[in-house]
Amino acid sequence: MPEFDYISWLRSRTPTDPRVLVGPGDDTAVLAPTARPMLVTTDLLTDGVDFRLAEVEPRRIGRKAMAVNLSDIAAMAGEPRSAVVGLVLPRTAGQRLAEELYLGLRDAADAFGVSIVGGDTNSWDGSLVIGVTVIGEATARGAVLRRGARVGDWLLVTGSLGGSLLGHHFDFTPRVREALALHAVADLHAMIDISDGLAADVHHILEESRCGAVLYADAIPIAPAAWTMSQTSGRTPLEHALGDGEDFELVFAVPPEDGERLQRDSPFPGMDLTKIGECVESGFWLENEGARRPLVPTGWVHRLG
Amino acid sequence: MPEFDYISWLRSRTPTDPRVLVGPGDDTAVLAPTARPMLVTTDLLTDGVDFRLAEVEPRRIGRKAMAVNLSDIAAMAGEPRSAVVGLVLPRTAGQRLAEELYLGLRDAADAFGVSIVGGDTNSWDGSLVIGVTVIGEATARGAVLRRGARVGDWLLVTGSLGGSLLGHHFDFTPRVREALALHAVADLHAMIDISDGLAADVHHILEESRCGAVLYADAIPIAPAAWTMSQTSGRTPLEHALGDGEDFELVFAVPPEDGERLQRDSPFPGMDLTKIGECVESGFWLENEGARRPLVPTGWVHRLG
Repeated sequence: MPEFDYISWLRSRTPTDPRVLVGPGDDTAVLAPTARPMLVTTDLLTDGVDFRLAEVEPRRIGRKAMAVNLSDIAAMAGEPRSAVVGLVLPRTAGQRLAEELYLGLRDAADAFGVSIVGGDTNSWDGSLVIGVTVIGEATARGAVLRRGARVGDWLLVTGSLGGSLLGHHFDFTPRVREALALHAVADLHAMIDISDGLAADVHHILEESRCGAVLYADAIPIAPAAWTMSQTSGRTPLEHALGDGEDFELVFAVPPEDGERLQRDSPFPGMDLTKIGECVESGFWLENEGARRPLVPTGWVHRLG
Repeated sequence: MPEFDYISWLRSRTPTDPRVLVGPGDDTAVLAPTARPMLVTTDLLTDGVDFRLAEVEPRRIGRKAMAVNLSDIAAMAGEPRSAVVGLVLPRTAGQRLAEELYLGLRDAADAFGVSIVGGDTNSWDGSLVIGVTVIGEATARGAVLRRGARVGDWLLVTGSLGGSLLGHHFDFTPRVREALALHAVADLHAMIDISDGLAADVHHILEESRCGAVLYADAIPIAPAAWTMSQTSGRTPLEHALGDGEDFELVFAVPPEDGERLQRDSPFPGMDLTKIGECVESGFWLENEGARRPLVPTGWVHRLG
């Protein structure tokens, strides 16, 4: 394929951002220093694992590649600032593919005031790979980590879960604004975005916080897509909600008084917040009609096909 | 392959760095803010293009993946600080491959005090891809850009050029320290690292600086490997030096008085510095025995096979 001049392309489409001192073009972007701690996250998406290029518009793929990284910044209740993009394009692809991917990357970046400041574009005989690194900034309240949940904390989740494979894994909104709104009014002890699946991701919090948890089966908010999938998957809607992954909602631990207040008085318009469980001394449990059984923390790792 | 737990692995091998507030493990690394402007660069390396996994030790591949990014920071005369790594491993590969790659990544990072603070490891049916993003910091003198060369400036180059395909493209030392030493004592108007090839990379400086240049054929320092390759390639050693790429030396523009001083009194022990040309009003020329002919700026883009 003809070399896609992404630098000229980016330059012509990158809005002026006073924090970007030297934008796309040089070997390296130069950014204004951050006043507060810097957040850095990276995710690579690959054809056949995270998307199928043959089946989905490239623009949605680009959008997802940026959005999964924004979701990681949201998990820390941080403010995303800038991004760099690494593309490996199939040699047979045209310039149109690179452009459509970048349009999608920009869609997601623009929605959160993120500047794409540089990148690296290659082609090869293999399939499409997109790597994105996002740099953000902690708020004055600091970054929220996986560790910090305490016994007695409530576990709350945004939105509803399960069945994202039917489309939501492309079209989700990273919960950047929700996280900032929560962080501003509540004492977030620990938080994570749901990428591996609710059970697996809550388990990450437990491992890092060195405590246990019980989840209430009848409280877990199940997405309509989980019901749809359960009709043919041989799994229950609850199993989909617990294990599917790529919901990109937030699950977090707060003191009970903060949990009550958040449920009474949502800090973000239209945000669904559900109490799904509590932190306990040890173990990981699913409680159903008063009986507790051990919860397998791995969930299903979301993989196409 | 069994999932390689790179997080535990990294944690056990990441030296304590007070600038890393939260290291490998959470969704996102948390780094102390930089006092000076931040530098961000990313490069993806792929099997068959930048290396051949079947033919070279994975540790050298990992080393290269980090070093090419450090070279981009060197090109700005910046100080590299931290890195994140994205790996896409062939599904058939064992954990040993991931470990060896990380050992190589660490070799290069450690040599320059860079902390690997996070990453993303995947596997798929395709070939190996390694993406690295390095974050650095400008010095108090600011970042050196591609733009800024002026008519009359001397063009100087570190080291010798050509034939890197014979092995140097894996084993080069990114010129981080040399760049900092030069920046401390000279007025570097413009600089770039030689990745595409001397002619192509000087041309990048000319495009950004809006001036021309003449290179002196008999002054260009030719690496022994360029002579070796010329015996079978059908190209002259000079053609190799001008076009091969992946030398990862620095070429820069300085005022004549700084150029004279640098050649007389090297600011870095053992660094070879050669004046290879001068900036002129327009055009791009190779001067040989008094005659100038236009220089094709593209060089050969370095590709295996």
